[in-house]
Amino acid sequence: MQKQKVVIIGGGFGGMFAAKKLHTLSQGDLDIELISKINYFVYQPLLPEVAAGTLNPQDAVTPLRNLLKGVQVRLAEVTDIDFDAKQITLLQGQRKILQRVDYDHLVIATGQVANLSLFPGFEHHSLTMKDLSDAYRLRNRVIECMEMADVTRFSDIKQRALTFVIAGAGFSGVETMGELAEMVDRILPEYPNIERHEIRLVMIQHGSRILPELPKHLSEYALNQLEKRGVEVWLNTGVHSATQHAVYTQDSRSLPTRTIVTTIGNGPSEFVKSLPIALQRGRIAVSAELEVIGLSNIWSIGDAALVPLNTSQEEPLYAPPTAQFAVAQAEVLAQNILHRTRGQNLAAFSYKAVGIMASLGGGRGVAEIYGRRVTGIAAWLIWRTAYIGMLPGLATRIRVALDWLFDLFTPRTIVYMAESDRPATRYLDYSEGEVVQHANEVPAGFYVVLSGSLTQEFERANGASEHHQLQVGDSWGSRALKEHRLTHGKITAREETKLLLVNSDDFQRLRSSYAAFNDLLSAGDK
Amino acid sequence: MQKQKVVIIGGGFGGMFAAKKLHTLSQGDLDIELISKINYFVYQPLLPEVAAGTLNPQDAVTPLRNLLKGVQVRLAEVTDIDFDAKQITLLQGQRKILQRVDYDHLVIATGQVANLSLFPGFEHHSLTMKDLSDAYRLRNRVIECMEMADVTRFSDIKQRALTFVIAGAGFSGVETMGELAEMVDRILPEYPNIERHEIRLVMIQHGSRILPELPKHLSEYALNQLEKRGVEVWLNTGVHSATQHAVYTQDSRSLPTRTIVTTIGNGPSEFVKSLPIALQRGRIAVSAELEVIGLSNIWSIGDAALVPLNTSQEEPLYAPPTAQFAVAQAEVLAQNILHRTRGQNLAAFSYKAVGIMASLGGGRGVAEIYGRRVTGIAAWLIWRTAYIGMLPGLATRIRVALDWLFDLFTPRTIVYMAESDRPATRYLDYSEGEVVQHANEVPAGFYVVLSGSLTQEFERANGASEHHQLQVGDSWGSRALKEHRLTHGKITAREETKLLLVNSDDFQRLRSSYAAFNDLLSAGDK
Repeated sequence: MQKQKVVIIGGGFGGMFAAKKLHTLSQGDLDIELISKINYFVYQPLLPEVAAGTLNPQDAVTPLRNLLKGVQVRLAEVTDIDFDAKQITLLQGQRKILQRVDYDHLVIATGQVANLSLFPGFEHHSLTMKDLSDAYRLRNRVIECMEMADVTRFSDIKQRALTFVIAGAGFSGVETMGELAEMVDRILPEYPNIERHEIRLVMIQHGSRILPELPKHLSEYALNQLEKRGVEVWLNTGVHSATQHAVYTQDSRSLPTRTIVTTIGNGPSEFVKSLPIALQRGRIAVSAELEVIGLSNIWSIGDAALVPLNTSQEEPLYAPPTAQFAVAQAEVLAQNILHRTRGQNLAAFSYKAVGIMASLGGGRGVAEIYGRRVTGIAAWLIWRTAYIGMLPGLATRIRVALDWLFDLFTPRTIVYMAESDRPATRYLDYSEGEVVQHANEVPAGFYVVLSGSLTQEFERANGASEHHQLQVGDSWGSRALKEHRLTHGKITAREETKLLLVNSDDFQRLRSSYAAFNDLLSAGDK
Repeated sequence: MQKQKVVIIGGGFGGMFAAKKLHTLSQGDLDIELISKINYFVYQPLLPEVAAGTLNPQDAVTPLRNLLKGVQVRLAEVTDIDFDAKQITLLQGQRKILQRVDYDHLVIATGQVANLSLFPGFEHHSLTMKDLSDAYRLRNRVIECMEMADVTRFSDIKQRALTFVIAGAGFSGVETMGELAEMVDRILPEYPNIERHEIRLVMIQHGSRILPELPKHLSEYALNQLEKRGVEVWLNTGVHSATQHAVYTQDSRSLPTRTIVTTIGNGPSEFVKSLPIALQRGRIAVSAELEVIGLSNIWSIGDAALVPLNTSQEEPLYAPPTAQFAVAQAEVLAQNILHRTRGQNLAAFSYKAVGIMASLGGGRGVAEIYGRRVTGIAAWLIWRTAYIGMLPGLATRIRVALDWLFDLFTPRTIVYMAESDRPATRYLDYSEGEVVQHANEVPAGFYVVLSGSLTQEFERANGASEHHQLQVGDSWGSRALKEHRLTHGKITAREETKLLLVNSDDFQRLRSSYAAFNDLLSAGDK
């Protein structure tokens, strides 16, 4: 008899632990495949430490293949599921042929993604903290800003470069800010032209306290610790929007910055939204047994799933989207899939969280474990010990422990890796009065106006200035790039304005390769 | 009296050590600034170990600011030098305004860059080993190929993915291949569907032996070691060209591969070429005192400079472009600049290399030190010990030593970081018969034909096939992208062909933003 095949989509806490448990329990009776867009397991709570340079990037992650011996791991992107044919479609590797993989059981454990569409401009101007590359990007951004601030002679650029903003003060936001504050203090001596008081660390929180998941006095302790270390916390403040220059709040404050980290607004991935499954609260509704409602042998766990906790009561209660719950669900899921293949009864998921804790950086933390509240160094030590214990694999544990040890007596890295940050074409948002380009700059690329309008201001030889308006559909930059000269007008947004920018190099390559495009541009050059 | 200002361009072995030495010797009498495009010092001989995952990327580099206390470090790109005004022009940071920096003494220590223009297609299809990002990119490429080979069902893709080619068997090539061979052996167990014999490691060397800088019997030992570990060494073979599919040799062999590392062909950087200085052998001619010929108070050292060693003799002899010589030159340079400011006599550069050595990976090496020849583990240990000793900074030394220790008992990382590898627009080369695109693939983007020609082959509903020719100036892909459908013809190069490819995402963003471009495309869509 052919083995039944279980396909798991997603390699986070839910998917990875489900694969591992299934492999152990099934003792070779099942054919297990895990499909993931990245080939490693990310230990998300450690990402702030990667961003701050405490941990080496590769130490906060473990390759899935290391963790899942006996499971086929496939680095690929699932594009479609055919529930009738029991088949998924995916894209992998270089030759972009759609591949098909059959399954008997399918587990959807794809988590949630940052949903930045709620706040105009955030999609284009803020960083997230979901993945290793996010942590990497934040570290690079901070260092880039420090390098620039150390040598610039423009005070507005310096001030903007030295303002770091985090939107959201849940676990991810607070831990990121704690690490960021520590990092900034540690690397400051490398930058002789920057004073500590010139650096602003601002956390914007919609609610009335930070870490709302924790008891009130722990929140207060955490707030106090962050403030002591120079973090400004704006409570009861909603973020409104972001531009290339600043972040704006709902109460109309603006804060010039180049660095916004968003830790709020999660939602279903595009892939989950594309499935013919009704979503509830943005998540896949499953039974207490973790099977997707209305489908057979299709399961879902972790942040992607809406898992009921108290099916018997009137007021529904659902599992929170945390790693602890995902891991507990993975256990029940593995058993239920096995039971199903053996015709046995399924078990309902139930779980009580052991505790909850947050690191505040700088050797401080807060924790509530089995109802006991702990703060300060003790909580921080509990945090570190607990995470070392939860890390998968001995090698990773030793590496992380050594990184921590090492961090005590060596300087934080300020190695800046350029590149990769900016895609060749990107959208830029501006508010009224914000300057897009000054005169006599090296042109950043080719611009197209998508919404709003701008004023271009030339200075004539006689000193008089000339104004010119740019509207939706207008473009500029092509001629300056072609002639290798500097920009010659100052361009300012007249209202909320959105632009597309194509990098100089890519633009020039396309132009010089594609004659019709070049003709078009030459005709329209101004 | 105002201090004299010394500006050093370049933060490699020459520039960094010159700045350090000048700072020490001048005891505050000079104002020293070092300008570099990267903010860290790269320890190039360790890059192969970073590529192979033995070392953490950040451990092979040290931030320049750490090393150069008391020296102003500026992360910027120098675009021009005005020798009359004693002023350099540079670009830094976000706002692209040209900045000017004055100098009294200027040191050009910008090294050399890989010159890939000698071999058609190498610029677009090969990797280099000059910088941290190169090492990073090679590691990612190898892992990407392994991941793909483990799951693909196409044997040609598998074979191509598992063929790794290094052009050039000097120090950099041999050390890279040694590390690569070790890496492949170490990570192979993670890939259950790949057998060792399916992996080809090929080194292509123009000369009759590898490591020609070493005595013959050491070359032979090294060759033997590499061959033992499954490396194919093609001696007396020149590379000719590379395409998206393969590397071609001068004796008309072709080798299908996705990974070509080039360690041959160095030349002056575009910046050095743009200066009003006559180059000799592609390097800046300097006097024995390291001053640029014909200019006063302009100095050059390291790989960028052509430093005479025996001015008195008939047959001119020049310092080889190695780190040892750069460091020795930095010492003399610092003294000479100080002597000049004090009106003292300058010293001529002379130096005798202590020794020469190479790591072969897998715990083997070759070395010649003070005329003594050493091979095997002893040479490898000498190599490691010597490099630990030469690393700048205690923290870096400890980190590297720990990485090495750790590597003995933990698995090599196979964490794959996607992105960053491929720019949005890039050139692709193909030889006659090579397939650019199959039918029913997800389109890679928008293509423009720059030279050569191609055949597009459609299958009709009745099974008959239809041919269509694509010429210079033709483009395709726009309609498939617009309609979100798969490609529908197979496209094959009819001769040597060069294409420009614009990534789907960037292309779509530009198209949907720029109406005139969209109209142009819609008119031409086929």
